[in-house]
Amino acid sequence: MPAPRQIFVAVIGCGGVGKGFLNQLSAVTSRVSRSSSPIYLSLVFLSRSSKALYSPSYQSLSLSTWEADLAKSETAVPSPQQIADYLSAAPSKVILVDNTSNQDIAASYPLFLKKGINVVTPNKKAFSSDYALWQSIFNAAGNGTGAGGYIFHESSVGAGLPVISTLKELVETGDDVQKIEGVFSGTMSFLFNSFMPVGGGGGSFSAEVKKAKELGYTEPDPRDDLNGLDVARKLTILARLAGLSVESPTSFPVQSLIPKELESCQSGDEFLEKLQQFDQQMDALKEEAAKEGKVVRFVGSIDVPKGEVKVGLEKFDLSHPIAALKGSDNQISFYTKRYGANPLIIQGAGAGGDVTAMGVTGDLLKVLHTIR
Amino acid sequence: MPAPRQIFVAVIGCGGVGKGFLNQLSAVTSRVSRSSSPIYLSLVFLSRSSKALYSPSYQSLSLSTWEADLAKSETAVPSPQQIADYLSAAPSKVILVDNTSNQDIAASYPLFLKKGINVVTPNKKAFSSDYALWQSIFNAAGNGTGAGGYIFHESSVGAGLPVISTLKELVETGDDVQKIEGVFSGTMSFLFNSFMPVGGGGGSFSAEVKKAKELGYTEPDPRDDLNGLDVARKLTILARLAGLSVESPTSFPVQSLIPKELESCQSGDEFLEKLQQFDQQMDALKEEAAKEGKVVRFVGSIDVPKGEVKVGLEKFDLSHPIAALKGSDNQISFYTKRYGANPLIIQGAGAGGDVTAMGVTGDLLKVLHTIR
Repeated sequence: MPAPRQIFVAVIGCGGVGKGFLNQLSAVTSRVSRSSSPIYLSLVFLSRSSKALYSPSYQSLSLSTWEADLAKSETAVPSPQQIADYLSAAPSKVILVDNTSNQDIAASYPLFLKKGINVVTPNKKAFSSDYALWQSIFNAAGNGTGAGGYIFHESSVGAGLPVISTLKELVETGDDVQKIEGVFSGTMSFLFNSFMPVGGGGGSFSAEVKKAKELGYTEPDPRDDLNGLDVARKLTILARLAGLSVESPTSFPVQSLIPKELESCQSGDEFLEKLQQFDQQMDALKEEAAKEGKVVRFVGSIDVPKGEVKVGLEKFDLSHPIAALKGSDNQISFYTKRYGANPLIIQGAGAGGDVTAMGVTGDLLKVLHTIR
Repeated sequence: MPAPRQIFVAVIGCGGVGKGFLNQLSAVTSRVSRSSSPIYLSLVFLSRSSKALYSPSYQSLSLSTWEADLAKSETAVPSPQQIADYLSAAPSKVILVDNTSNQDIAASYPLFLKKGINVVTPNKKAFSSDYALWQSIFNAAGNGTGAGGYIFHESSVGAGLPVISTLKELVETGDDVQKIEGVFSGTMSFLFNSFMPVGGGGGSFSAEVKKAKELGYTEPDPRDDLNGLDVARKLTILARLAGLSVESPTSFPVQSLIPKELESCQSGDEFLEKLQQFDQQMDALKEEAAKEGKVVRFVGSIDVPKGEVKVGLEKFDLSHPIAALKGSDNQISFYTKRYGANPLIIQGAGAGGDVTAMGVTGDLLKVLHTIR
């Protein structure tokens, strides 16, 4: 039996995804320590917005009492540079898990990777901001060259659904990806499945937005969903993986569902209050689609040969797979040369702490399998 | 820049999947040789049923003229033991690609793996025969322990669709897989989508079987599809990955669509000729389903907590995702604790040389990323 290896894990962010991840890490840690080739995973750094937990001797933190331990901590969160110095001086290989959606931490990935720290994350900002950051991250990442660390980000699109790994495999095995199309936002999925369900019904648009917010399907300020930027970020990531040099999530047409007249609203509440003045516009769209025997959905699409990316409302036949979506499910279709007329489709929950964490934990396992 | 690594590839079987794989290998070989951490992939063994190509000095075979070279070869195919000896004496790491559906080669996987040879394959027989062979394969496989070789078999279920990798990730990240259900056979999918399309229509069952055979959707003898064994093998693999110790693909209920009275037919042609005598039975089933507002499909399902696996005809509501399938597509739904009421669904072509080869090439890349 080979000697057990120790691998250090550092976690930034312990909100919904972070908690889910730490739960899953606890199960994984126990499983891999009992395998025929044991690995000892050791949590050596943990931080949330204001507090951190770590020791100069890389003492292992508890995966059962971390929440109380962090609450008691009086240690401030170190800067990304300090975190990088701390982790790169560790006596074992390190996997850094960024469960935030923080732009500053994303901007530090090249720093971490160059120091040989492996990074796994659902943080969309790292991969959908300026193209320069994307290039800087993947130039710094070794991903097999033996120099920089590995980076995986399955959960940056479609949460735990195998969207990014599938696209990478299509590209790497030499398929010709022609079009990627789908519903990429759980919020938008829920909203339009409720606003215009197949078979008729649904309330006014503003009422459905209010309902979605009350049920927790939107961001605290629903404008953060309705502006389409979240979907645009995901499309940016997929388009880049498909080989397009998309400059930023605002460098292609993105339809915002925030009426121009309401862009100046001071608060989400004021916006929600005034949104009903625009219900007629959405109702007209609904009627128009119904007359054509279609439904309206908020989708994103990438035409790879044409280099076109777009995000917005489109009408779909009732027999189209997108019309059959339920609840807040995502659905991503890959049209490729090999798959022909019927696309490769991946569907299911594309948001939520546990399924997002699953993608992160899966990425951690991929790094483990590679660096062990 | 790190020194380039050489990795040897050996290929058994060059029919439809094998040809597709060798095409893809050619593209991959060229790509990885130009990466920032170059790998030289070298084909050092190639065989089909009667002939082989290889040299004692592990000379690289041509990926552009292999077909003509193999046709000219007068070298007989060595035994699995001889292949294992040849490959394990190689001066580089070896990935053996078995593109056959041969039981004898499958039975030799433990031999290859113990000698440190990595194996990737779409060969269902290796993973769906006696449970003892399954155990023997995975005991021999190192998959990270540093001893035996790695083994990957994505294409043994759903061809290139990411079915096995997804199930493994659900299990390894600690999700609670409750049910796996779907259409696992392109032939059966095409047959029932034609026999009983949503919206009505479709010919007699025997006529649809004949049409499917003429269009190349069935095995040369369609009884090899209609007996349900192909689906039962795929279910056996998934059930074992989900943790069930399924003894064999005949150890659970499998509904054969070959009428008892026709089991003694001497040939596929005789069978096809006589099948129309049983069209009435299938028509009755079709009418019964139609009266309930449903369609009939040939599906497999695994109830993990109950340990139940079954394969056969079932009726589905028109709104069920299985009813919306088109052409010869597969559709696999994973019902898990994390995904809740709406399953994680993977859908698309589940058969065909190129898409099956894609799963094999993807597995080869997984091994490369790990052993490089």
